[in-house]
Amino acid sequence: MEIKLVKDILEANEVIAAQNRAFFTEQGVYVVNLMGSPGVGKTTLLERTAEGLRGSRRMAVIEGDIATSRDAERIAAHAIPAVQINTGGACHLDGNMVRGGLGQLDFGGIELLVVENVGNLVCPAEFNIGEDAKVMISSVAEGDDKPLKYPLMFQVSSVLLLNKVDLLPHVAFDLERFRADALKVNPRLEIMPISCSTGEGLDRWLRWLEERISAQGA
Amino acid sequence: MEIKLVKDILEANEVIAAQNRAFFTEQGVYVVNLMGSPGVGKTTLLERTAEGLRGSRRMAVIEGDIATSRDAERIAAHAIPAVQINTGGACHLDGNMVRGGLGQLDFGGIELLVVENVGNLVCPAEFNIGEDAKVMISSVAEGDDKPLKYPLMFQVSSVLLLNKVDLLPHVAFDLERFRADALKVNPRLEIMPISCSTGEGLDRWLRWLEERISAQGA
Repeated sequence: MEIKLVKDILEANEVIAAQNRAFFTEQGVYVVNLMGSPGVGKTTLLERTAEGLRGSRRMAVIEGDIATSRDAERIAAHAIPAVQINTGGACHLDGNMVRGGLGQLDFGGIELLVVENVGNLVCPAEFNIGEDAKVMISSVAEGDDKPLKYPLMFQVSSVLLLNKVDLLPHVAFDLERFRADALKVNPRLEIMPISCSTGEGLDRWLRWLEERISAQGA
Repeated sequence: MEIKLVKDILEANEVIAAQNRAFFTEQGVYVVNLMGSPGVGKTTLLERTAEGLRGSRRMAVIEGDIATSRDAERIAAHAIPAVQINTGGACHLDGNMVRGGLGQLDFGGIELLVVENVGNLVCPAEFNIGEDAKVMISSVAEGDDKPLKYPLMFQVSSVLLLNKVDLLPHVAFDLERFRADALKVNPRLEIMPISCSTGEGLDRWLRWLEERISAQGA
């Protein structure tokens, strides 16, 4: 009974996600669904990404949070169009919530839309929102045992950004174990160690985005 | 429609939680529901707690994880009775899952049961499991903006353990802002800065537990 219900919700979401998808394709915008636990650095990554793409690519952001508009305010301070969705209690964004946010953005000239999901390593992985790619962030402060303990998020993501590598000298984190476990769960996962504090590794992330945006516009 | 459904699920859970509660009272065991994001140090706290209570109080642990039995194995290595519940995909423990775990524990002589919830700062806060107290862990690596962004978890908890304070010199974290925001959300919250790496602050946590266990047995 409960399983049936969950299936209905997921199927209904797929319909709306497909509609979002058609809209994004029509607009020629590349869409990233950015996911990860609270405090791994999702919004800070978007700030660094905005700086990195400034003058070359036009970006917009949809911020998903349970409460507050703090994240959208941080993004807007970088002169990036940003919409805040407050989910109330909900632990993830779904296709319908994202659709609600789309009407508040002017897509003229926008080439990249990043949707920052609610901070949660579990639930967001189950809901498509019409994105081109799911990108997840983890942090060395979270520990190296996450791929096997939270496998779905690692399975559905195309890119895994491993943030806060500047903290490696101060935490117990086995990078090789983490990498091996992540690839065991998803052999196609592209793993990029980064630090949003020092800027390490961000060039690779920006290059990855640039290639996708170019292909989308072609 | 959807709201009605969620209400039904929560009401059904309350019935089972009350049954668990009656069982715990009968056994004279104090029960903590330990919650927090992935990687904030829940299992490490339990390892330190097991060491701290050794020889004085008898403790058991129920580990909730989506997958793997790694956490229960870590606890069992400290000669503490531990049961692993794998939730499959589910993002939280509910009363029924905990009830399923109870049958696998021998409660003879056990004075404290800690149930480590799935790593998630959102969903576990909605489900009572029959506990005496909800305790949450946050970490300075998660950032100081969490109380206002994830308010429910802070509202329902009696104790907030702020872990990894040994990392304070290496991360941007405003302890006074964090404390003020947490108390704004829940003025009765008891906030304890700790480090499971250095042991800082753990004496206060152990004292808090000791007082509750004594009161329960009285």
